[in-house]
Amino acid sequence: MTYCVGMMVDRGLVLMSDTRTNSGVDNISVFRKTFHWHQPGERIVALMTAGNLATTQMTISRLEEQMNTPDGRGNVLLTAPTMFDLATKVGRELRSTIAERQDANGDRGQNRFTATMILAGQIAGMAPRLFLIYPEGNFIEASLETPFFQIGETKYGRPIIVRAHHPSMSLEDAVKLLLTSFDATLKANLSVGMPFDLMVIERDAFAPSHVARFEQDDAYFNALSSAWGAALTNAFHSLPDYSFHRERSG
Amino acid sequence: MTYCVGMMVDRGLVLMSDTRTNSGVDNISVFRKTFHWHQPGERIVALMTAGNLATTQMTISRLEEQMNTPDGRGNVLLTAPTMFDLATKVGRELRSTIAERQDANGDRGQNRFTATMILAGQIAGMAPRLFLIYPEGNFIEASLETPFFQIGETKYGRPIIVRAHHPSMSLEDAVKLLLTSFDATLKANLSVGMPFDLMVIERDAFAPSHVARFEQDDAYFNALSSAWGAALTNAFHSLPDYSFHRERSG
Repeated sequence: MTYCVGMMVDRGLVLMSDTRTNSGVDNISVFRKTFHWHQPGERIVALMTAGNLATTQMTISRLEEQMNTPDGRGNVLLTAPTMFDLATKVGRELRSTIAERQDANGDRGQNRFTATMILAGQIAGMAPRLFLIYPEGNFIEASLETPFFQIGETKYGRPIIVRAHHPSMSLEDAVKLLLTSFDATLKANLSVGMPFDLMVIERDAFAPSHVARFEQDDAYFNALSSAWGAALTNAFHSLPDYSFHRERSG
Repeated sequence: MTYCVGMMVDRGLVLMSDTRTNSGVDNISVFRKTFHWHQPGERIVALMTAGNLATTQMTISRLEEQMNTPDGRGNVLLTAPTMFDLATKVGRELRSTIAERQDANGDRGQNRFTATMILAGQIAGMAPRLFLIYPEGNFIEASLETPFFQIGETKYGRPIIVRAHHPSMSLEDAVKLLLTSFDATLKANLSVGMPFDLMVIERDAFAPSHVARFEQDDAYFNALSSAWGAALTNAFHSLPDYSFHRERSG
């Protein structure tokens, strides 16, 4: 499994991903799931991936391969005129990669090679944008009402984001929020694992403003996790008391 | 969908269930999912159900039907000598109800009639016990390490229970905890809906100690939900600040 979140706030985009891949619980590995490309001052583009690892690696490789041709033709990651255009092209590449594997494997291939991606970035002269790209190649874009996308194991870590996200929050607070969401997910699903990769894309920076990897023994993450446990317990005890002498209606 | 939780604390058992059933989003109804039977001073037994409604109603009806025979023979709910024995018999009834429907519908019936149950209760002279009964008829029992079971939409509401459950908590606090868990689930999954049914089984009471139904406009639940939102925000802001000037390792 996987857990990746892309979140939009007024000041930019914050992306976080775990690094665990597994094929059964006895076959786990660490793979990076966040990839980025940038042209200083002109654009930054990042992709996060969930699903079949061969599919996501192949899709990323093909996108990069186009980038490495001598004449740079088809170099969509760095030449697509808009983020929308790029989302269309990444979606097309993802869909065709999945379709090839499925066609080659017939009925046995159904649903086995699927993958989902989050695309985030900003191109000079335009606003930062955030997309969720489906295995079918279509996509949706984040908005004020839905300012974040999750892929992989999305449920455990969702309530805290829904509760605490605010567009005016600082990028540092956005990182803190994603870490609490990852903490909840980590505690519940073994197939989501550390290290976590963080990438902050400040509005109009056109470069990764901050990149970090949180390893098992990360002092800040461990302090945050303990503090969050204690703060939740306090929050819980501050709630209005329940009384058995309420009016019965059941 | 459904959300039901059965939780064990030192002082007894606390059960909560939603009441929404749906067959598509345009066909929703309110059905009770918690059922109980008791013999004052001797035993109390409760069942919570998730899954195919026809299956769970049929299973419950058959268990009750046995209870209503003139000689009370086979009246497992009120005569099973132990909770373990009762879990075995409820499991058998559940499995055979599912199997009948599947057999009658062949391939089209695969996985369509499945259901899961939580069995909770206490019989005089023995401790309160809590079981999770699978569609296959087998079951597991709660323990000190895993003092609660959830069925239905289990993920959104799990992190807060894992964080805040403590065996020494009061029954009132246990109710509060389940309400926060239901609040998180309600916000995330439309197919889980109010009203919620609550049942508290105090240790050695052998009767429902407290029963309540939380309707849409329940003043306590609404106050709790707002207070929880505010408390979470405060808890979040009390966390150690993140700084972009941490040592980079990624």
